[in-house]
Amino acid sequence: MRACRREPVPRPPVWLMRQAGRYLPEYQAVRSRVSFLELCKSPELSAEVMLATVDRLGVDAAIIFSDLLPILEPMGLELEFTEGTGPVIHNPLRGPDDLARFLELEDVSPLDFVYETVRATRAGLSADLPVIGFAGAPFTLAGYAIEGGGSRTWLHTKRMMLTEPAAWHELMGRLARTVIRYLLAQFDAGANAVQVFDSWVGCLGPEHYREFVLPHSRTVLEAVAARGPVIHFAAGNPALLPLAAAAGGSVLGIDWRIDLDEAWRQVGYDRAVQGNLDPAVLHTTPDVVRQQTEKVLAQAAGRPGHIMNLGHGILPQTPVENVLELIATVKAAG
Amino acid sequence: MRACRREPVPRPPVWLMRQAGRYLPEYQAVRSRVSFLELCKSPELSAEVMLATVDRLGVDAAIIFSDLLPILEPMGLELEFTEGTGPVIHNPLRGPDDLARFLELEDVSPLDFVYETVRATRAGLSADLPVIGFAGAPFTLAGYAIEGGGSRTWLHTKRMMLTEPAAWHELMGRLARTVIRYLLAQFDAGANAVQVFDSWVGCLGPEHYREFVLPHSRTVLEAVAARGPVIHFAAGNPALLPLAAAAGGSVLGIDWRIDLDEAWRQVGYDRAVQGNLDPAVLHTTPDVVRQQTEKVLAQAAGRPGHIMNLGHGILPQTPVENVLELIATVKAAG
Repeated sequence: MRACRREPVPRPPVWLMRQAGRYLPEYQAVRSRVSFLELCKSPELSAEVMLATVDRLGVDAAIIFSDLLPILEPMGLELEFTEGTGPVIHNPLRGPDDLARFLELEDVSPLDFVYETVRATRAGLSADLPVIGFAGAPFTLAGYAIEGGGSRTWLHTKRMMLTEPAAWHELMGRLARTVIRYLLAQFDAGANAVQVFDSWVGCLGPEHYREFVLPHSRTVLEAVAARGPVIHFAAGNPALLPLAAAAGGSVLGIDWRIDLDEAWRQVGYDRAVQGNLDPAVLHTTPDVVRQQTEKVLAQAAGRPGHIMNLGHGILPQTPVENVLELIATVKAAG
Repeated sequence: MRACRREPVPRPPVWLMRQAGRYLPEYQAVRSRVSFLELCKSPELSAEVMLATVDRLGVDAAIIFSDLLPILEPMGLELEFTEGTGPVIHNPLRGPDDLARFLELEDVSPLDFVYETVRATRAGLSADLPVIGFAGAPFTLAGYAIEGGGSRTWLHTKRMMLTEPAAWHELMGRLARTVIRYLLAQFDAGANAVQVFDSWVGCLGPEHYREFVLPHSRTVLEAVAARGPVIHFAAGNPALLPLAAAAGGSVLGIDWRIDLDEAWRQVGYDRAVQGNLDPAVLHTTPDVVRQQTEKVLAQAAGRPGHIMNLGHGILPQTPVENVLELIATVKAAG
């Protein structure tokens, strides 16, 4: 929390995106009993998974165990997680006419299970560690809603954005207002900070980001800023960073595609930064992990406001010993 | 050719990466008779496909019809193109021991079919249009050789790079020296310019690019520079652009993830630039194509040395009428 506010700390705090994930045997054991979506909808179990991970890794924050996409279900989409292929939406939005069946949520209580997860995680966590809530940014949610899942090209999304701008802005507006209520409810439930994930926005260039994304991200980021630190993670394209900073966030998430010192210069020293070790580094050896972690730490040294993290989520099959080495290296920097 | 040398031209020249591709019915007709690899190895047919495309589209250059990967076959890899899943290498290089079966080509005559394609394309093309040869950059070739195909994470590649740096540099050196001979042979056969594709290098951050890639790309780019214009296309990560420019190339290829005017500022006005319309724009309507093309042209206006192109290859299922609209828009700018 102090790092988010750019206050001096003895060493950078550290947590990892997807820290409770497929790479952990304990997580796999839980998942052998329940599906991913069932787990997300079981607050006690979700909290347990994250609390056990925080204990195991010794990280400095818990992010709630949840997913970007359940918010789309009460808005009208049929969501399924299939093993191996990732999320599928069976009734994607492909044109303006489809908006009639995509509802802004005035009432976000259909997502009560998420606020329960925040509460249970907060209740079980040491008082000196923060709980981070999260949501998808409007663009990333729109991308999934339009494609019906992940995509390499985001072609349907870009087509709607460019050829049906009125429908696009209406869709993004509904998402933005719903996400605001969803994040505020997570703060109400006890989240100390929130992260907004624009995981796929890097498929756009700056011109399109400025026109079709920035105003909606700004709506979200400004509306929740008063409640606590907001980490804005616009991933995949370093050329968007100055615009992502303009959209908002007290902390900017930085992926590994740019040197952290250069990224911080670009987003401005009036913001904190989070990142940015390449998650692939965790697939090497403890020695390489230590050396590469120290390089990232060195780039951010000399200025308060760095939260150590990866530049993207932990990959499957990551050796746990390398994750522990990363965390030990950060702690040794104190 | 004048644009490559940053000499004044009445309007920017235009050609498109993958201009002879799956989106064209004429190309599909050829491919219904021969496989992709057979086509690449049939110089007369490869030339025919490209010459017909140049006629059909009215573009200002022919790039040879070929592929990045056939160079890996005589170096020792078993290459197959399977419909739908893309290239597969059946005996990928996964560690230092595998280098024993990966040979630098002192003699690049096993790739004679490529030089024949250059010759046949040059012979059939109007004298006022250039023929562009090409090759993969060392990193992109190493990535395919190590992964055994394309990858989302390039995990095996990064692991070898970070944990076996000596083997990595040896592998990159063999690739660089082979690529130099391959490109020089294409110039000998009549290519007027060449493009070096580092299609997947955007998976790296600047620090890793600087240490593990830049020296080898520079070796290639410097060795062929005296023979004619070299277009260096390091795609996928705008934060690499200043380093890619430092590696070399009289023309820098720019993908759509950065505004073209900002990209040109970063690579320096002593270089020409090529790009950078988002290929997804060609999946919209002729009106949107015209408007978006004009925006790109406007960003590069006022300074000689812009070659209009996409920011990546044409996507499958692209409507031909939109491709024609892009080209007509560039020609109307004259």
